[in-house]
Amino acid sequence: MYQLLNDLSIIEVSSFVASPTAGLYCAQMGAEVIRVDYKAGGLDYDRYMLTREGRSLSWENLNRAKKSVALDLRSGEGRELCVELAARTGQCITNLPEKSFLSHSAMKAAQPERAPDMTSVRIMGWHDGRQAMDFTVNAASGYPLMTGPEDWDMATAPPVNQVLPAWDFITGAYCAFALLAALRHRDATGEGSEVRVPLGDVAIGTVANSGMMAEMLYRGSDRERLGNAIWGAFGRDFRSKDGVRFMVAALTPKQWDGLVEAFDLAGPIGELETELEVDFSAGDRPRFENRHRLFELFQTAALSRDWAELEARMASHGCTFERYRTAHEAANDPVLVADNPLFGPSPANPSGFEYPAARSFANLPGRAPDDPAPAPFLGQHSEEVLAEKLGLSSGAIGKLVDAGTVALSDKDTIYHR
Amino acid sequence: MYQLLNDLSIIEVSSFVASPTAGLYCAQMGAEVIRVDYKAGGLDYDRYMLTREGRSLSWENLNRAKKSVALDLRSGEGRELCVELAARTGQCITNLPEKSFLSHSAMKAAQPERAPDMTSVRIMGWHDGRQAMDFTVNAASGYPLMTGPEDWDMATAPPVNQVLPAWDFITGAYCAFALLAALRHRDATGEGSEVRVPLGDVAIGTVANSGMMAEMLYRGSDRERLGNAIWGAFGRDFRSKDGVRFMVAALTPKQWDGLVEAFDLAGPIGELETELEVDFSAGDRPRFENRHRLFELFQTAALSRDWAELEARMASHGCTFERYRTAHEAANDPVLVADNPLFGPSPANPSGFEYPAARSFANLPGRAPDDPAPAPFLGQHSEEVLAEKLGLSSGAIGKLVDAGTVALSDKDTIYHR
Repeated sequence: MYQLLNDLSIIEVSSFVASPTAGLYCAQMGAEVIRVDYKAGGLDYDRYMLTREGRSLSWENLNRAKKSVALDLRSGEGRELCVELAARTGQCITNLPEKSFLSHSAMKAAQPERAPDMTSVRIMGWHDGRQAMDFTVNAASGYPLMTGPEDWDMATAPPVNQVLPAWDFITGAYCAFALLAALRHRDATGEGSEVRVPLGDVAIGTVANSGMMAEMLYRGSDRERLGNAIWGAFGRDFRSKDGVRFMVAALTPKQWDGLVEAFDLAGPIGELETELEVDFSAGDRPRFENRHRLFELFQTAALSRDWAELEARMASHGCTFERYRTAHEAANDPVLVADNPLFGPSPANPSGFEYPAARSFANLPGRAPDDPAPAPFLGQHSEEVLAEKLGLSSGAIGKLVDAGTVALSDKDTIYHR
Repeated sequence: MYQLLNDLSIIEVSSFVASPTAGLYCAQMGAEVIRVDYKAGGLDYDRYMLTREGRSLSWENLNRAKKSVALDLRSGEGRELCVELAARTGQCITNLPEKSFLSHSAMKAAQPERAPDMTSVRIMGWHDGRQAMDFTVNAASGYPLMTGPEDWDMATAPPVNQVLPAWDFITGAYCAFALLAALRHRDATGEGSEVRVPLGDVAIGTVANSGMMAEMLYRGSDRERLGNAIWGAFGRDFRSKDGVRFMVAALTPKQWDGLVEAFDLAGPIGELETELEVDFSAGDRPRFENRHRLFELFQTAALSRDWAELEARMASHGCTFERYRTAHEAANDPVLVADNPLFGPSPANPSGFEYPAARSFANLPGRAPDDPAPAPFLGQHSEEVLAEKLGLSSGAIGKLVDAGTVALSDKDTIYHR
C-alpha cells in the first residue's frame, strides 16, 4: 500500500478476475476503490476455494483494500443508484456488457454539472461483442497447442491449457494503465474517455506484440515443439542426482559462461564446438540451434551431482536458475513469502483465516509501505458510500435497506454452499 | 495509437520482454518513448525469430512506435549521455540493475534545475537482487507442476512450462501502470518516485492475489491435478466427431443452460441429477465437484456431431466456447486478425516484411485510432533526440559519431547472424 493514487475514487462493477484485478492494483496504490455488487454477491462471490464457512479465498484476495456497496442490481432503483455513483465519481471500471444498464452513455447522462467528465474502462470478451473468458481466448491464441512435452506428435498433440489465467491478469494490469492514461488526458484537456479492452484482443494482440504472429507468417507454418526449452535461447529444466527439478537460462554471455563453469563442462563443450564447428559463446543462436546436444551434456552433468551442490555452484557463478516448487511448497517457502517484504500480515480477512497477503508489486525505496488491507465484507460500506457520495441521509438509506434495494454488511451471514 | 499520453516523453533503457512491453503500451497511447541501446544493439536485438537478413521479428514488434538512440553504453561518455537524457526527460523505464550506471540516484543527481523530479520504474529479477527471468520465476510459482494431463501421477509429473512468457507481459503492463501512478502523484505533489518492480514478486504476488496461496495454506496440501479443466467451475476441452478440439466454459446460469441445450443433454443431465441427488443449476460447485461425470456426457455428445453443427448450436445458445487454433492458424484467421480493428497495416518494418500489426489493446469509441507505427531502425533518432533533448549542435553530434560514442541508423547494415 502506497498513497500514490489517494486523490482518486473509482467505482468498480466487476466479477471474475480481470476486472477486480484492475481495481486491486489501483487500491494497492492508495485509490479509493468502491466495488458495487449485487446484494447477494456478484457472480464471483462464491468462487473456489471456499472455506468451510462458505467464504471465497479467491474473492477476498482479489478485492483487498476495496470498499463494498451491495445493491439490488436486478431492480431499476438499485441500478439507478449504481449509475449515479459512477457518474458522480467520474471513474468506473467494469466488465458488464456495453448493452447493460451501465453503458458509458448512461453514466455520462447521469453526471451532475461539476463532475469530472466520465471516464470508464470496460473489459469485454471479443472485440465483436462475443462472450469470452481467459480459457477460451487462450484456445484461440495458439499457445495451448504449443505447450507440453517436446516428443508429442505435432499432428495429434492435445492442447495443454495454462493453469495461470494469464490473459485475465495481463488485462487487469493493462486496464489499470489504460484508466490512468485516460485520466491523464482528462487532467490535460478536461475530456473524459470511454475505453474498451477486449480480453480477446489482449490475447491475439500479445501474440502480435511478442513477434510470434510475424514469425508464423514469415515461416508459413507452425513452430516446432519445444517442450520446456526457451524459444531462441539456451534454457530448459534439468534434474539433479537426487531428483530435484530446476530451470536454468542463459541469455547473456555472462550467464552462459557461468553456467558452463557451474556444470564443469568447459571441456566437453569445447569438444562439441570442434565437432560441430560452432562457437557457443557467439550468442543465443548457436546455443539454441544445437540445444539438444547441449541439453544432453547438461543433463548428464546434473545427474552426477546432488541439488545442494548444484545450487551452490550455480549461485557462486551468478547463474539464472530456479528450483521448481509445487504451489503448496511455494506458499510455505520463506524466501518467496515469509522473508519477502512484498508480503505483510492480513489479520482481518472476511474468512477469518489468517495468512500472508501481498502488497503492491511495486516497491518505493525510501517510503514505508502500509500493511496490506483486507477485503471488505459484502455491503460493509453501503451506508458510508451512499451518504458520502450521494448525500443520502441515514433515514433515506434506512428506507432503501428496508425496501431491499440496499444491503448492509454480510459479516454475520452464514453461507451454506 | 491514441494520443492520450502525447504530453509524455519516456527514456527506455531495456531489453528482453517485460521492460520493452511497458514502453510499447505507453507508445501505443501516444507517448514519445525513446529507447536507448548499446550502439550495436541491446541484448535482445537478435532475439528469435530472425529474418534471412538477420532482423529480429521479436524486436520489431516489441518496439513499435518508439524512437531509437544508439550509444556506446560501455564507455563513460555514452553512459553519461544516457543518464543525462533520462534526467532531463524526468521519466525512465529500465531493467538495468540498480547497481548499474543508471541508478535512480545517478539520474536524480544529473537533473537540471527545472526538470520534473525524477521518476523511474526499474524491473528487477527477485526482490533481493537475485537474477531472474520469466521461466525461472515461473518455476518457483507452482504453476508448471500443476500443468499438463490430469492422469499424470502427482508425485512424478514433470513440470510443464507455459510457452507464453506471462510474467513478462503482466510485469510490462503493471510497470506502465506504476509509471503513470507515480506521475499522477508527481503532478499532485511535485515529488518524483523511484519504483522497483521485481518480476519474481509479480509472480508470487499473483499467486497470492489469485487466492491460490491462501488455498494452499488452507488445505495444507497441493491441489489435485485438473488437466484442462477450469478450477472451481464447469469447463474443459472437448473433441467433435470430425476431430476439432474446442474449449467450453459455463460459469453463469445462462451459460450453463445454453450449454445443456446446445449439447441436447437436458435428459441425461436430469437423470444424473437424480442419481447424484444434486442440482447442477445451483452454481459452480456441484458442476465442478461432479465434473468427471459431466465431462463424460458432454464428450459423448460432442463425438456424435461434426464441428460445424456443434459450433452453430453453441453460437445460437449464447455459449462461451472457442476452437483451438495452432499459432499459424491464429495468425491467418480473419476473425482474429484481418477483420479485427485491433490490427492495422505496418508497411515500414525494419525487416522489410509486411504483416498486420497491433494497435493498443484499448479502443476508444468515437475516436479514430492511427495506424500502428513501425519500430525504428537502431539509432534512427540519435541525432534528432540528442539535438532536441540535450541541445547538442550537429557539429557536436558529428564528433560523437566519429568518436564512436553515438551511432546512427543501422538501416543499411547487413547482419550475418
